[in-house]
Amino acid sequence: MSEVTASYASQVSAVLDRVDAGLDASLDRLFTLLRIKSISADGAFAEECRRAARHLSEELAALGFAAEVRPTAGLPAVVAKVSDPPGSGPHVLFYGHYDVQPVDPLTLWHRPPFDPVIAEDTAGRKIIVARGAEDDKGQLMTFVEACRAWKEVTGALPLNVTILLEGEEEIGSKNFGPFLKEHRRDLAADYVLVCDTGMWDRQTPAITTSLRGLLYEEVRIKAANRDLHSGVYGGGAQNPIRVLTRILGRLHDDDGRIAIPGFYDGVKDLPPDILAQWSKLGLTPETFLKPIGLSIPAGEKGRLLIEQISSRPTCDINGIVGGYTGEGSKTVIPAEASAKVSFRLVEGQDPERIRAAFREFVRGRVPADCGVEFIDHAAAPAIALDWHMKPLAAARQALTDEWGREAVLIGSGASIPIVADFKRTLGLDTVLIGFGLDDDNIHSPNEKYDLRCFHKGIRSWVRILAALAEAKG
Amino acid sequence: MSEVTASYASQVSAVLDRVDAGLDASLDRLFTLLRIKSISADGAFAEECRRAARHLSEELAALGFAAEVRPTAGLPAVVAKVSDPPGSGPHVLFYGHYDVQPVDPLTLWHRPPFDPVIAEDTAGRKIIVARGAEDDKGQLMTFVEACRAWKEVTGALPLNVTILLEGEEEIGSKNFGPFLKEHRRDLAADYVLVCDTGMWDRQTPAITTSLRGLLYEEVRIKAANRDLHSGVYGGGAQNPIRVLTRILGRLHDDDGRIAIPGFYDGVKDLPPDILAQWSKLGLTPETFLKPIGLSIPAGEKGRLLIEQISSRPTCDINGIVGGYTGEGSKTVIPAEASAKVSFRLVEGQDPERIRAAFREFVRGRVPADCGVEFIDHAAAPAIALDWHMKPLAAARQALTDEWGREAVLIGSGASIPIVADFKRTLGLDTVLIGFGLDDDNIHSPNEKYDLRCFHKGIRSWVRILAALAEAKG
Repeated sequence: MSEVTASYASQVSAVLDRVDAGLDASLDRLFTLLRIKSISADGAFAEECRRAARHLSEELAALGFAAEVRPTAGLPAVVAKVSDPPGSGPHVLFYGHYDVQPVDPLTLWHRPPFDPVIAEDTAGRKIIVARGAEDDKGQLMTFVEACRAWKEVTGALPLNVTILLEGEEEIGSKNFGPFLKEHRRDLAADYVLVCDTGMWDRQTPAITTSLRGLLYEEVRIKAANRDLHSGVYGGGAQNPIRVLTRILGRLHDDDGRIAIPGFYDGVKDLPPDILAQWSKLGLTPETFLKPIGLSIPAGEKGRLLIEQISSRPTCDINGIVGGYTGEGSKTVIPAEASAKVSFRLVEGQDPERIRAAFREFVRGRVPADCGVEFIDHAAAPAIALDWHMKPLAAARQALTDEWGREAVLIGSGASIPIVADFKRTLGLDTVLIGFGLDDDNIHSPNEKYDLRCFHKGIRSWVRILAALAEAKG
Repeated sequence: MSEVTASYASQVSAVLDRVDAGLDASLDRLFTLLRIKSISADGAFAEECRRAARHLSEELAALGFAAEVRPTAGLPAVVAKVSDPPGSGPHVLFYGHYDVQPVDPLTLWHRPPFDPVIAEDTAGRKIIVARGAEDDKGQLMTFVEACRAWKEVTGALPLNVTILLEGEEEIGSKNFGPFLKEHRRDLAADYVLVCDTGMWDRQTPAITTSLRGLLYEEVRIKAANRDLHSGVYGGGAQNPIRVLTRILGRLHDDDGRIAIPGFYDGVKDLPPDILAQWSKLGLTPETFLKPIGLSIPAGEKGRLLIEQISSRPTCDINGIVGGYTGEGSKTVIPAEASAKVSFRLVEGQDPERIRAAFREFVRGRVPADCGVEFIDHAAAPAIALDWHMKPLAAARQALTDEWGREAVLIGSGASIPIVADFKRTLGLDTVLIGFGLDDDNIHSPNEKYDLRCFHKGIRSWVRILAALAEAKG
């Protein structure tokens, strides 16, 4: 350990004290951000989104960052760089997003979604309630407030930081890929930090080291040139719902495996040591499925439930519609039927190859006198981090120190497409650390963030920044 | 031939002239009926249904019938009896229905469905366009207008007629069976006439002597207790659309046969002579499927197309819905998914046994942690008439006289559940005569009735009423 890094470690305690003492002020600043209705999905709130960007840029400038709002083809981004970077240590690029999900159905909220409060949950725990309280305003502010504490106590950050905040994450980050390309040189760093994921559970911090990819297709089967009466044509004319269910009903085999030829090509089993670690996490049907009213893991037979939801590729039919769906009955043979089908992909799977294989699987099962159309909704590869990369071990130790319980490395079943862009465009790996909990109601009414998660989240970043400064290279 | 019946025959020509001269007025009355939005499937139109019943009752009363609207447990029926019945001759019970199918998708209609017009089809033929133009308002009005012409020319009908109009045919006639039972004595007759079927083709009139039965079930699969995010739960939590498509996709085997155990129990092959006659009718994929944009018979392999659509039992999925069906994509695993499934049944099949077998087929394929619910929409056995019953020959000759081409006896693939009730409750056989064409778009957008079918339909009934009066006993 060099003198320099040793000095960071020695300062941590004072910075943490500062975090504790300044918690109320940190909450005030979070609340100010939460009051801005930055819903990216609804054009009516575009000005509110721009206001959130300006507000954050000004906050970061006041903190000593060289900060500015930068336009994209859509809603603006914020880029803030340390104006007096330390001479040594790694350079991290922190990513967060200031936009939030729509709030409907508004009637299910117990309070106005943009009027944040500290409330108590049924177990007496203090929670911050508002749209964005967790996703992602609360989470991104844990990092900003950690930087503030470092600045206030030591006058500087222990390592070079660029903060990059996006305004279109909740609507697919469509304009952010081109933005990254355009500002490629300006965003140079050693790796990316993202605070948009969760803890393993209320006690156990986690680093997410893999994200599943996503292929999302819509398939439409067309049969007759109009709706038919099943009494007149039933038995003679092809029924597109029959064709569609016949195809979709064969996407999974009897063992829950996906039956598309070549689907598992390139998919690797987990290394035995990781599998062993995951086995110990104790994710059971009782803990994971019972709260949602289920009890039997639905994925591939012979796999752990935790594998099924995080390291194995899956297929879900997200929507289906055809024929008469109103009340009562109608003896119609519809002209067409369609479904939305998505695949969560893992390392080794190429979304474009899976797309081609899926379409071939479907086409081969469509009767010669019926038609089929496809719509491409998304295609993003999986992300997998090298479990032995240096910052990972340092961040893990810092988290373990803060929470008093060993931080776990987990795979997420979800997809964060922008992480693939960081790799592709900037050549950077991403370390995902967040303090969300499964019951935070993100994307739902009554979103919340545990006050303890916010507070210890700030403290975690204080420790992580020091640890990463040590783990340079 | 008695003097009385001879006098009917001599009057036919004058009555037919009256029909021709009064066609415009007949159309005006039909249009008034077509403007009433009597959609029985949608409770929002219940008052419109009641209005249709009142309107028809008043029309028939004005025509000299003792007519009244009579309540059922659902939408009302109309019963109209000749107030001065002839002293001799058979008594016929005419049945029709004033309710119509829903109109969705409304965007596919070229005009508002309840604003009837006379238009020209692409071949320059005049057509009446509106929901119900054929099914069954146009058809039932051919009979009413024939009665009117007889009344206007001769002051009476050639035989005793009771007109019975229902308001729930399109939703399975559930309340009509009990209604028949309740009014059993009051509905006594020698046989039933129904005008709700079609011609063999544009030139060839037909009498339908068999009808397929109908079993209509709705099945709803329930998985998690709320909608889930497929990134978090995909692979672990059961997807009800996957369950549903897996089940529905196995209802047919690779040869187009229905795979439910016991489904074909009791089903007999056609007698060789009827099969030979049907073969000669020349129903080919070219004539039957090409107009609707298809080319390959979808039913059981090894059966004639005409068997597939009229004498063989079938299964169709009439509607399916689950998850996100809007524009774009949403990575949701829905809590439930449902489908409407109907079976056309033939002689020898018991609807209740088929229902039980279907439900067992489904239940046996639902994962243990998912639920399934069924809704019973309809259950009616198939109907087969004695090909040698007396009124059949008389009606056939009358049709042949009107159309100049021998009327054929055919089996219909459709179901008119009430026909089984006429037999069971009233002990009456039913003669089905109608003037619909395959391209009438019944149950579809842009429903139409050829003006010629309406006109010659009225003329046909004028002749049939006289012929049946002769064929008494």
